[in-house]
Amino acid sequence: MDKKMDTFVCKGFRASGISAGLKKKTTPDLGLIVSDCAATVAGVFTKNRVKAAPVMLDRQRVKSGICRAVIVNSGNANCCTGNEGMVRARQMARSAADELKVSEDHVLVASTGVIGEPLPIEKIQAAVPRLAASLRPDGWHNFAGAIMTTDTFHKLLEIKGELNGKSFSIIGTAKGAGMIHPDMATMLAFICTDARIEAPALQKALAAAVAFSFNRITVDGDTSTNDTALIMANGASGVALEDAEALDYFQDLLNRMCNRLARMLVKDGEGAGKLVDIVVRGALSDEDALTVAKTVAGSNLVKTAFFGEDANWGRIIGAVGRAGVEVAPDKIDILFDDVIMVKNGVGCGKAIEEKAAEVLKKPEFTVTVDLNMGRGRDCMTTCDFSIDYVKINADYRS
Amino acid sequence: MDKKMDTFVCKGFRASGISAGLKKKTTPDLGLIVSDCAATVAGVFTKNRVKAAPVMLDRQRVKSGICRAVIVNSGNANCCTGNEGMVRARQMARSAADELKVSEDHVLVASTGVIGEPLPIEKIQAAVPRLAASLRPDGWHNFAGAIMTTDTFHKLLEIKGELNGKSFSIIGTAKGAGMIHPDMATMLAFICTDARIEAPALQKALAAAVAFSFNRITVDGDTSTNDTALIMANGASGVALEDAEALDYFQDLLNRMCNRLARMLVKDGEGAGKLVDIVVRGALSDEDALTVAKTVAGSNLVKTAFFGEDANWGRIIGAVGRAGVEVAPDKIDILFDDVIMVKNGVGCGKAIEEKAAEVLKKPEFTVTVDLNMGRGRDCMTTCDFSIDYVKINADYRS
Repeated sequence: MDKKMDTFVCKGFRASGISAGLKKKTTPDLGLIVSDCAATVAGVFTKNRVKAAPVMLDRQRVKSGICRAVIVNSGNANCCTGNEGMVRARQMARSAADELKVSEDHVLVASTGVIGEPLPIEKIQAAVPRLAASLRPDGWHNFAGAIMTTDTFHKLLEIKGELNGKSFSIIGTAKGAGMIHPDMATMLAFICTDARIEAPALQKALAAAVAFSFNRITVDGDTSTNDTALIMANGASGVALEDAEALDYFQDLLNRMCNRLARMLVKDGEGAGKLVDIVVRGALSDEDALTVAKTVAGSNLVKTAFFGEDANWGRIIGAVGRAGVEVAPDKIDILFDDVIMVKNGVGCGKAIEEKAAEVLKKPEFTVTVDLNMGRGRDCMTTCDFSIDYVKINADYRS
Repeated sequence: MDKKMDTFVCKGFRASGISAGLKKKTTPDLGLIVSDCAATVAGVFTKNRVKAAPVMLDRQRVKSGICRAVIVNSGNANCCTGNEGMVRARQMARSAADELKVSEDHVLVASTGVIGEPLPIEKIQAAVPRLAASLRPDGWHNFAGAIMTTDTFHKLLEIKGELNGKSFSIIGTAKGAGMIHPDMATMLAFICTDARIEAPALQKALAAAVAFSFNRITVDGDTSTNDTALIMANGASGVALEDAEALDYFQDLLNRMCNRLARMLVKDGEGAGKLVDIVVRGALSDEDALTVAKTVAGSNLVKTAFFGEDANWGRIIGAVGRAGVEVAPDKIDILFDDVIMVKNGVGCGKAIEEKAAEVLKKPEFTVTVDLNMGRGRDCMTTCDFSIDYVKINADYRS
């Protein structure tokens, strides 16, 4: 299937993406999403204490719960740019607002790229009329392309929902990566639905979906100053999601959307060749399970062993032990898919290790750590750690 | 200076190192240190919940405060080896005790190497008579060589002290690395002094010295199941360190010893080409400063930028922001040696960046992060993160 041929449509939304000359090459670097009517909006932002100017602006503006457009650039993070950075983030929103003839307060902004360089606002202002003119109901691929940095493919998905015989759509697009494409930092996700949902319910749904998707992936442990996930709901489908049952249904769809986008980010992680789910079960609590899963998923040693296709469970149990939660080393089981490598903290021998090595050759597999102490469980998705990761991040700016 | 020609001597101690055939090649892999009289002893061990058998054994035995010998093997960690692992750790100590005709309880054990494989105790038992026969007062280099795994050079130092006109000696040897040579895991350090110090004072001194040396370095964030630092004091110099002033003096010497050994570990970090001190000052507390220093020193992105000799301060400020402590982004200054790269959270421009790039070409330099909020300060020592790190850790067991 040629992805360019997908024609995703979400009623009442239009999107576009063009080159404004922010990047060295003439690749697309400026994107726009517009809702033809006022949409409700919700956002989740980076927890990094150092926040980029567009993040600070959006955090204020989403409080109104109303949004008409979001304008996004790649190639420059507009972060650590001082007061002038805030001025330019506002100018970027205003140029879109003026062109679209909507209230400036109802335009959000996102930026991704190198930290610490002045945002070339004149180039953006000069490009906005062309950007607005190219808005199309099926312009999502252009948008998805314009927000990429070191991404190697578009992250764009559509999920259809149905309520009382009426259908609605959710379109989601993202770029790597909270902890993936770090200097050209930033995980960005933009989700649009033509269902109608009140802003407080939308915020609750987005926060829940992000917690179990974008916050359950890791590539290198570094988080960004620009991480942003936004959702807009404009009701253009005529479907209103109001009662608890309808909202639960929407939550399921949104979880699935965010989960699939998050997995796409890991798959496209810098230098990554393998997608690995780290499942921890049998912990004393879910919190403990998550702590252990994060430590294993974030271990450079575990991840380089995945790259080397080495069933090196000693590194996994070492990471489990340093997670800082209560474990009984002589109760720990470790599985690679369904191959039991370690039983009660002791290896199951060379023959089993060879079977596990077969699992490691697969592009996707699951490592299960069973602590055999309680009922707590959680999961993190990670990737292998390759020579290319170092190459990409050592050479990136030169 | 040919290191092999150093003849370090610490009165009343002898050391040796030979090949017992534990490693694939016939490189030295079994070492022994013996005190001719009963020495006081203190130990600091890994905080990893998964502890190797020798660590569990030593934690019990150092409680007596008395030690005559320590026997150490490389090539096998004797970790995750179940009850049989404990049996073999005891057998290893007993074989040395029998040969040396000392109490088994006064022999300590350490192991380093691959996790999860049975310790080849017969090879060790067969080699112990030869190991004991090769003990020499100047046998430290043989010992230092026998405990190495992926280390590329011996870590061996001597410091002389003097009290009331009488001199005493401290000899220290270590292998990488708590967080450096991870699968052939394990930071091991063995320090001997011919001064006399009571066991409780020795424990206090060691814990303090380790906190500001081995616990202030990082290579990849992974800690080991086998980390062990032991110190023995046998009094053979005739110098007794008893009053507060003498103990303070010893603490200074021991701090210096541990600090220099720790820096040698980082210098020999897997794939490392640069040694970088991360100094954080101006924090609200020393704890905050340490947290920030650890986050920056442990960031893969910061470390790959060091490898690429890229003065990428955006990654540093990003790491500062995600450390989880109170910072004011618009107060942060960042220096590369004495080049001010960032002032009040904003970059000082391309010309300065080029000067900073010159600093990055040096094999050793300091990155200072001034939070300009308070008087808290601390420091971590780290290295760059290179392609060779991934190669070493992906290919290690194959």
